[in-house]
Amino acid sequence: MTTDVWLDAFTTEDYRARMSRAVDAAVRAGLDGVIVAPGPDLVWLTGYQPTAITERLTALILLAGQPATLVVPALERPDAEAAAGAPALRIVDWADGSDPYRAAAAHLPPDGRLGISDSTWSLHLLGLLNTVPDTRYDALSPALPMLRAVKDANELARLAAAGAAADAAYREIGDLRFTGRRESDVAADLAHLLRQFGHEQVDFTVVGSGPNGANPHHEAGGRTIQAGDAVVLDFGGLMNGYGSDTTRTVCVGEPSAEIQRVHDVVRAAQQAAFDAVRPGVPCAEIDRVARAVITEAGYGDRFIHRTGHGIGVTTHEPPYLVEGEKQPLEPGMCFSIEPGVYLPGRFGVRIEDIVTVTEDGGYRLNNTDHGLRVVR
Amino acid sequence: MTTDVWLDAFTTEDYRARMSRAVDAAVRAGLDGVIVAPGPDLVWLTGYQPTAITERLTALILLAGQPATLVVPALERPDAEAAAGAPALRIVDWADGSDPYRAAAAHLPPDGRLGISDSTWSLHLLGLLNTVPDTRYDALSPALPMLRAVKDANELARLAAAGAAADAAYREIGDLRFTGRRESDVAADLAHLLRQFGHEQVDFTVVGSGPNGANPHHEAGGRTIQAGDAVVLDFGGLMNGYGSDTTRTVCVGEPSAEIQRVHDVVRAAQQAAFDAVRPGVPCAEIDRVARAVITEAGYGDRFIHRTGHGIGVTTHEPPYLVEGEKQPLEPGMCFSIEPGVYLPGRFGVRIEDIVTVTEDGGYRLNNTDHGLRVVR
Repeated sequence: MTTDVWLDAFTTEDYRARMSRAVDAAVRAGLDGVIVAPGPDLVWLTGYQPTAITERLTALILLAGQPATLVVPALERPDAEAAAGAPALRIVDWADGSDPYRAAAAHLPPDGRLGISDSTWSLHLLGLLNTVPDTRYDALSPALPMLRAVKDANELARLAAAGAAADAAYREIGDLRFTGRRESDVAADLAHLLRQFGHEQVDFTVVGSGPNGANPHHEAGGRTIQAGDAVVLDFGGLMNGYGSDTTRTVCVGEPSAEIQRVHDVVRAAQQAAFDAVRPGVPCAEIDRVARAVITEAGYGDRFIHRTGHGIGVTTHEPPYLVEGEKQPLEPGMCFSIEPGVYLPGRFGVRIEDIVTVTEDGGYRLNNTDHGLRVVR
Repeated sequence: MTTDVWLDAFTTEDYRARMSRAVDAAVRAGLDGVIVAPGPDLVWLTGYQPTAITERLTALILLAGQPATLVVPALERPDAEAAAGAPALRIVDWADGSDPYRAAAAHLPPDGRLGISDSTWSLHLLGLLNTVPDTRYDALSPALPMLRAVKDANELARLAAAGAAADAAYREIGDLRFTGRRESDVAADLAHLLRQFGHEQVDFTVVGSGPNGANPHHEAGGRTIQAGDAVVLDFGGLMNGYGSDTTRTVCVGEPSAEIQRVHDVVRAAQQAAFDAVRPGVPCAEIDRVARAVITEAGYGDRFIHRTGHGIGVTTHEPPYLVEGEKQPLEPGMCFSIEPGVYLPGRFGVRIEDIVTVTEDGGYRLNNTDHGLRVVR
């Protein structure tokens, strides 16, 4: 099952509009433009993704009043020319043995101030600084954190489809046996299900059983799942280029009173945070609301991460729902709400949905039941 | 088939020795130390690889006379503590909502000069520079290009095992049908074979048939392979944490005189370059020798990339066999020798082996036949 039959491909005009939006946002932020290396920003701005991200410089240069310029290694030029956004780009190449930073510098102002995409290798930033020393650089997501945050209808459709596929995977996984199997076996099943329901890329399949669930970033290991375990299932990836990310915590057999109690607390925190979503509310407020419920229940010091993160062409991007983040929510923003409680050496519970902001409040892109599901 | 039964695991002492070697090399290069974000350098220095490389700062700080310090997000601390190199590290964590750069800065000199790993996100480099503005940074691979270049016996054993597995995949792929199948089908077969023969990660499976072979970085597409096609097969990945990378060009049915002639030229160039390998020879000389053979045959302007690259915990690293690279070869270095000729719109030919340097000359870690193999 894939959904690309009803999803329009992004056009050159879509990419041209995004590049234009990026330049406008940069100028408003006091920058002369942006420079973007391969990664999610480049995919979003141009549709271009090199086969591999390597020590060879590829860089998109966007400056007010200048043609959008993509500097590429000569041997990757045919790939770049095949990108959907290529007709909106001036493509410039450099050959092995020549200086890529000099090739890029020819298109940079001598003393500009530029945003640079977060994941640009330091090798390249330092190479550019050595060649054009009077440029000042700001990291792109702190400078333009909301560049990709507000999704258009086509993007929302893709995120909704990815969320529905992840939900389908969750519904199926709970019918399979957990007891006596290794976490890594269940993780492999989850990956298989995500692909079966249309994902082209699986980014993570966390299966945290019993004490492993108390480590929020535990992926899946060789531990054999046992009766009575709480099991955190957190999984996602990309479908049609857009991300999914959902978490449910299940119980193998009937839950203990404590697992049920902690689950009730996390569920209430997730619901309260969701109910607080509406345009204009600062990101930090969503975190505060979730944390207040958990703190009130006596587990405040066991909720050891922020409440959520944005999602789009990546499964982890701004906006971040974290203490101190003043950014107000806007319609079209999409992010996770994923409070959790982690009891070291014992178990963890997390519940996560992707939520988008509408004029009327939050709208969930994950819709599986929040109750504590009992599995075999 | 995996070979880890006879490969000793790297020990904490191995990692301690590597970190010590890195500090010594940094000091010799005029640096106070190095800072290393997740990626191949961190894996090589500590055995630690976070689940994902994200906007959350993880950084190893190595300074002369100071304990090796690993700064990690609090929620990833258990993962870091589980790494084989962890007993040689002081692990320091920072919590969501706190400033990771301040956490790192507490362990940095106020006005030091540091090497920083190539793939460290610019987000982090700029964050560090904002917090400790008087630090100067040099990119690590230009500053210490040979840090990981000379492999020890355990590393050589892993590279040899990965090469042998890739060779086994090549032997099998040639027995399968090419005519009438898509490039992407053959690529899927190659990936499957690499995994079957022990690879835990497949990095690339280039299948460049007919005109697609003339684009050296073409991966594999929907083109249907036809009788008479030259097909470039370039594939590799990681096995036991170390890389494979080999290329052979096959012909579907009997080759045309031109395909045979170009193949003979590339084969002679590869052999001449291999024969030139010995300690003390500059990297650029290997490139020059390969290029001379191809130029002599009249295809000099159709050899559009460097002759090779190092290999180790990545499939692409220093040393680079490229014009201008004065680095002398040393015993234990491992790199590809991969000349090619690319005729736009028609076909390409490339032959690639991984080669290691011994006291007596080159030693191939790929050993399949160099003749132009005819496939169905």
